[in-house]
Amino acid sequence: MSSTPTLLLTMGDACGIGPEIIAKLYRDAAGDGDCAGLAVVGDLGVMRRAARVVGGFVAVARVDAPADLAGVPPHCIPVIEAPGLPPDLGAAPVGRVDARAGAAAAACIGHAVARVRAGEAAGLVTAPIHKEALAAAGVDFPGHTEMLQALAHPGGPMPAVRMMLANDELRTVLVTIHLSLRRAIDAVTFDAVLQTIRIAHAASARWGHARPRIAVAGLNPHAGEGGLFGDEELRIIGPAVQAARAEGIDASGPWAPDTVFMRARHAPPGHPGEFDLVVAMTHDHGLIPVKYLGVEQGVNVTLGLPFVRTSPDHGTAFDIAGTGRADASSLAAAVRMARRLAAITGA
Amino acid sequence: MSSTPTLLLTMGDACGIGPEIIAKLYRDAAGDGDCAGLAVVGDLGVMRRAARVVGGFVAVARVDAPADLAGVPPHCIPVIEAPGLPPDLGAAPVGRVDARAGAAAAACIGHAVARVRAGEAAGLVTAPIHKEALAAAGVDFPGHTEMLQALAHPGGPMPAVRMMLANDELRTVLVTIHLSLRRAIDAVTFDAVLQTIRIAHAASARWGHARPRIAVAGLNPHAGEGGLFGDEELRIIGPAVQAARAEGIDASGPWAPDTVFMRARHAPPGHPGEFDLVVAMTHDHGLIPVKYLGVEQGVNVTLGLPFVRTSPDHGTAFDIAGTGRADASSLAAAVRMARRLAAITGA
Repeated sequence: MSSTPTLLLTMGDACGIGPEIIAKLYRDAAGDGDCAGLAVVGDLGVMRRAARVVGGFVAVARVDAPADLAGVPPHCIPVIEAPGLPPDLGAAPVGRVDARAGAAAAACIGHAVARVRAGEAAGLVTAPIHKEALAAAGVDFPGHTEMLQALAHPGGPMPAVRMMLANDELRTVLVTIHLSLRRAIDAVTFDAVLQTIRIAHAASARWGHARPRIAVAGLNPHAGEGGLFGDEELRIIGPAVQAARAEGIDASGPWAPDTVFMRARHAPPGHPGEFDLVVAMTHDHGLIPVKYLGVEQGVNVTLGLPFVRTSPDHGTAFDIAGTGRADASSLAAAVRMARRLAAITGA
Repeated sequence: MSSTPTLLLTMGDACGIGPEIIAKLYRDAAGDGDCAGLAVVGDLGVMRRAARVVGGFVAVARVDAPADLAGVPPHCIPVIEAPGLPPDLGAAPVGRVDARAGAAAAACIGHAVARVRAGEAAGLVTAPIHKEALAAAGVDFPGHTEMLQALAHPGGPMPAVRMMLANDELRTVLVTIHLSLRRAIDAVTFDAVLQTIRIAHAASARWGHARPRIAVAGLNPHAGEGGLFGDEELRIIGPAVQAARAEGIDASGPWAPDTVFMRARHAPPGHPGEFDLVVAMTHDHGLIPVKYLGVEQGVNVTLGLPFVRTSPDHGTAFDIAGTGRADASSLAAAVRMARRLAAITGA
């Protein structure tokens, strides 16, 4: 194996933009550097259709394993076919929720994880899936994170994972993700907050950052203003920060949600950033600031899994699927991030 | 009257940074342009103390009415003394809650509104007040917004108002503000959302924007993802958007909170902005993106009043009051914004 880590790229929902942005990634690759060590786990027919949609010089070839990548020329997408793909997947109309696409997306993820667990690759980059398509296929996971958590050690203990969103300026790690806001508030417990801080700290340590400055955001406006606007900061978040500090973690807060991300923003030379990452209580507190400057820059990283996993920071974009207009920048950023993390952790 | 609108600048809490940032505004004004048309409603002694604290070349002069502004030289603060100021206000110690400062702050606001209602000025820019000082003075309002709401039509109906946070890139109008997140969810009702959209629309129309594109953010992650993560979008927010559209308002949504602010971000030439303003359900959904690029740029605008009112996006900062360290940038931005709004509305 070369020094470039091997990564598997799952095709995502066949009716969304996933296959197209993968095809663009290969079409626009400079030499073979951008796609080195990368193999797609997907469906040959779907990937061929996507290659036709994006046009330009890009081919598709079936490979049996990552070990066969060396023989694949530049601008050719190496596809490992996942077992169990629906035979009529090609009939699923682009831009719509379709149970066949949901089933295929789940099959690709399951197969890719199995290959990673078998030591064939260091990690995953996942193209977008659609939760309603998964549900239509009877796949009982709200998203990638939960599915990967369940697949990480089948039959064994489920690892505690957290979602991190990152761009060049800001990294946020989320205590809660795909829950209604009302249920998310209930899920902000002492254990959940402390575990998030620990996972963020441990992941940073794996990436060579021994003692990251972790800012913990509050849940309520003004972080509760001393109990005036909610007491979760006093009852739950503050004590979790203190417990983390007692373990030697450089955690601080709870800070007012409306200013902590601005304070952590790393935009030198004018704005060096007071913190290395921010722990946010809710999906949107954490994601609004990372996405504000443009989703094409954001990368989603799952912390706590036994392998590297990144994904672009956008969805299936059914409204533009099939047009070739989708932007592959965030997928490219996700590949670069996964390669960096896999190289650092030596996976 | 010149073409520059006349604006009254209330002094705020005498023990906070308000008087100092006003003195800095005049000290650092380029020519007299930055302070043109501006008169302070406050106390002469307090403003003289503030001028000494910030140093440099700045004087203080008593004026009887905005009509007298023409005779005031640059770098001289024209102060209209509010009737009913406590005689021993100068004895109130800087950096502390004091009933005299609370009473004076309320007297200045009341007098400024009376002058605006009499047609002497187009609107208000308010320096920060302190809720505890108001309470100590027996003033039964939690803040500016509620006080201005009560003073707008004495004896008449109280106007419905909403808080807007704005900078050069983004304008967000909030359905809920100073409530715990749990209570804020309960306060997201059909009526509250529809009224917020109407107020935002009417305010934009007054500013010469007849048909603003109003994006309405969801409450839940992914705007509930079709009911999977909460049903407020289906039960409440979506119907309110439809009702607004039926009234001819160009409202859309509910959009996913994590991307709608990025989509509305107006940063030409690369990013023109898909919407003119965003209606946000919670304080922090709306404020995180406005503050992300720097709190000194954010301005608070009260929508729904019969006159223009802006304020800097920070509080009395008792911890640094009296040191001359407070930053006047947000106050300067509030003055610029008020001037622009007053000029457009022809007030």
